[in-house]
Amino acid sequence: MRALLLYRLELSPDTDPPDTDPADAVVEVDPATPIIRATDLGVTRGDGVFETAVVRHGVPQALEAHLHRLERSAALLELPAPSLDRWRTAVRRAAAAVSRPGVLRDGEIASIKFAMTRGDELDHAGPTGWVLSFAGADPSAVRAAGVTAVVLDRGYRHDVMHTAPWLLQGAKSLAYAVNQAALREAARRGADDVVFVSADGFVLEGPRSTLIARIDDTLVTPPPEFGVLPGTTQGDVFAGLADRRTAIVPVTREDLRRADALWLCSSTRGAVPVRALDGAALAIDHELTARMNAVLDARED
Amino acid sequence: MRALLLYRLELSPDTDPPDTDPADAVVEVDPATPIIRATDLGVTRGDGVFETAVVRHGVPQALEAHLHRLERSAALLELPAPSLDRWRTAVRRAAAAVSRPGVLRDGEIASIKFAMTRGDELDHAGPTGWVLSFAGADPSAVRAAGVTAVVLDRGYRHDVMHTAPWLLQGAKSLAYAVNQAALREAARRGADDVVFVSADGFVLEGPRSTLIARIDDTLVTPPPEFGVLPGTTQGDVFAGLADRRTAIVPVTREDLRRADALWLCSSTRGAVPVRALDGAALAIDHELTARMNAVLDARED
Repeated sequence: MRALLLYRLELSPDTDPPDTDPADAVVEVDPATPIIRATDLGVTRGDGVFETAVVRHGVPQALEAHLHRLERSAALLELPAPSLDRWRTAVRRAAAAVSRPGVLRDGEIASIKFAMTRGDELDHAGPTGWVLSFAGADPSAVRAAGVTAVVLDRGYRHDVMHTAPWLLQGAKSLAYAVNQAALREAARRGADDVVFVSADGFVLEGPRSTLIARIDDTLVTPPPEFGVLPGTTQGDVFAGLADRRTAIVPVTREDLRRADALWLCSSTRGAVPVRALDGAALAIDHELTARMNAVLDARED
Repeated sequence: MRALLLYRLELSPDTDPPDTDPADAVVEVDPATPIIRATDLGVTRGDGVFETAVVRHGVPQALEAHLHRLERSAALLELPAPSLDRWRTAVRRAAAAVSRPGVLRDGEIASIKFAMTRGDELDHAGPTGWVLSFAGADPSAVRAAGVTAVVLDRGYRHDVMHTAPWLLQGAKSLAYAVNQAALREAARRGADDVVFVSADGFVLEGPRSTLIARIDDTLVTPPPEFGVLPGTTQGDVFAGLADRRTAIVPVTREDLRRADALWLCSSTRGAVPVRALDGAALAIDHELTARMNAVLDARED
């Protein structure tokens, strides 16, 4: 990965006055320039939220779904409601900028990560925000080869979002050290990725992806009420496969064993098949994977 | 709180060469200056560790215990081992600087927060480190008045440190959004602070403190194996009260109901009595609280 472009967003604790042009709030800075203070709650507590959208056809894909989820995560963390006009303006502008000829090298695609923190813990001047565009590897190879994954316990019951909302399950927060540690555990076990399960045996999601399982010829994914992120990519896969049975339903570990195909879906990679889970081989349905990704790559917003 | 002094630490992925002067790695910067990039894993993932020491008599109290715990947290996150000489040098220098006459205002004490992140996710140039000195309120008032607290579920079983080490329990990490959310939940319930319990009914710790309970005339605190931080302040309280029975033992929610006094211990505040738990009044033992804090405030290292 390499950084392409960074915008700092001027945010205030209040909602935008109606006469403000959202474009005025977007300030371009060198990506190598530090923009976050040592007293920003984003870094002192992981107290913030983020989204990552991929760029195709010059636009950030599924932007409205990402903005909606940013709003949802902010609400779960009780952050000020994001000024969506500012974020939309900045992310679109970044997508257009990195889509100019010559920005990307062969074999690269552009993605945009945008984040909002609670701001400085000392000056209380409102949220800190930024929009970072970066180049990553084109996912064609991983979509064809698939990944290996291991099942790891996320430690919480499936219903903590309701019984203990302060655990922030279902929020895409900056406090993702556990997700990173789970990926290191996967690597230690010789695998590429992780499927989290709840302490009481329900399948959840990956540390950076939404799971789709094909069980009894139906494509299923766990419900957001179980503390998983509503998948923007999985949502568009389901919407785009009108001839397939799809369902958002609880999936147990036992159900997962009966799955004859699995995918991990994320914005930057699309639908990536799982070719082995906990060491047990799974067939890759190359044709369906290609259809899923054709649906995703064709999106123009 | 107000920032007093900020040092950036030059860290490398390797251990210090023997001919390096640790003082050379300490660079003073204006605390208002951003020092963290938007691509630093400390802010993108909460992927880092920290400690906070209080300054008394011109020195950071319990510094070796804090450095030891920084090392332990770094190991739990599989970060490079911190170069303790550099951290020790920087924190001591900061303590001396903020102890000069005229730096603190009446009613303030100085504390030092030091943090190490995994570093930039793009350039892989090694950890990012900083040492921030700040002024906070003298804790005399809160030590006398005590605080109110509520019991909240932390969602994990007591043994996840062993069964699922990737959950990073027992590490003082930058991914503390849940601790912040728990404190907001306490405020919503009209309380000042939180006592976390495990999903299976064991008492753990506060979001920013170690719990001491007096049960059957013994001062007890839960064991670090239950995924709680080894308390530097609680440790010095136990060590300093040689005439009292103390024990590091499992404490259940039922045990907690039998406690006739509770304290939340932290570096910046010392031992603060809990005057009500979940709305039920608890007597404050002012004499013992004063003895605990006399022990703490007398420390010269």
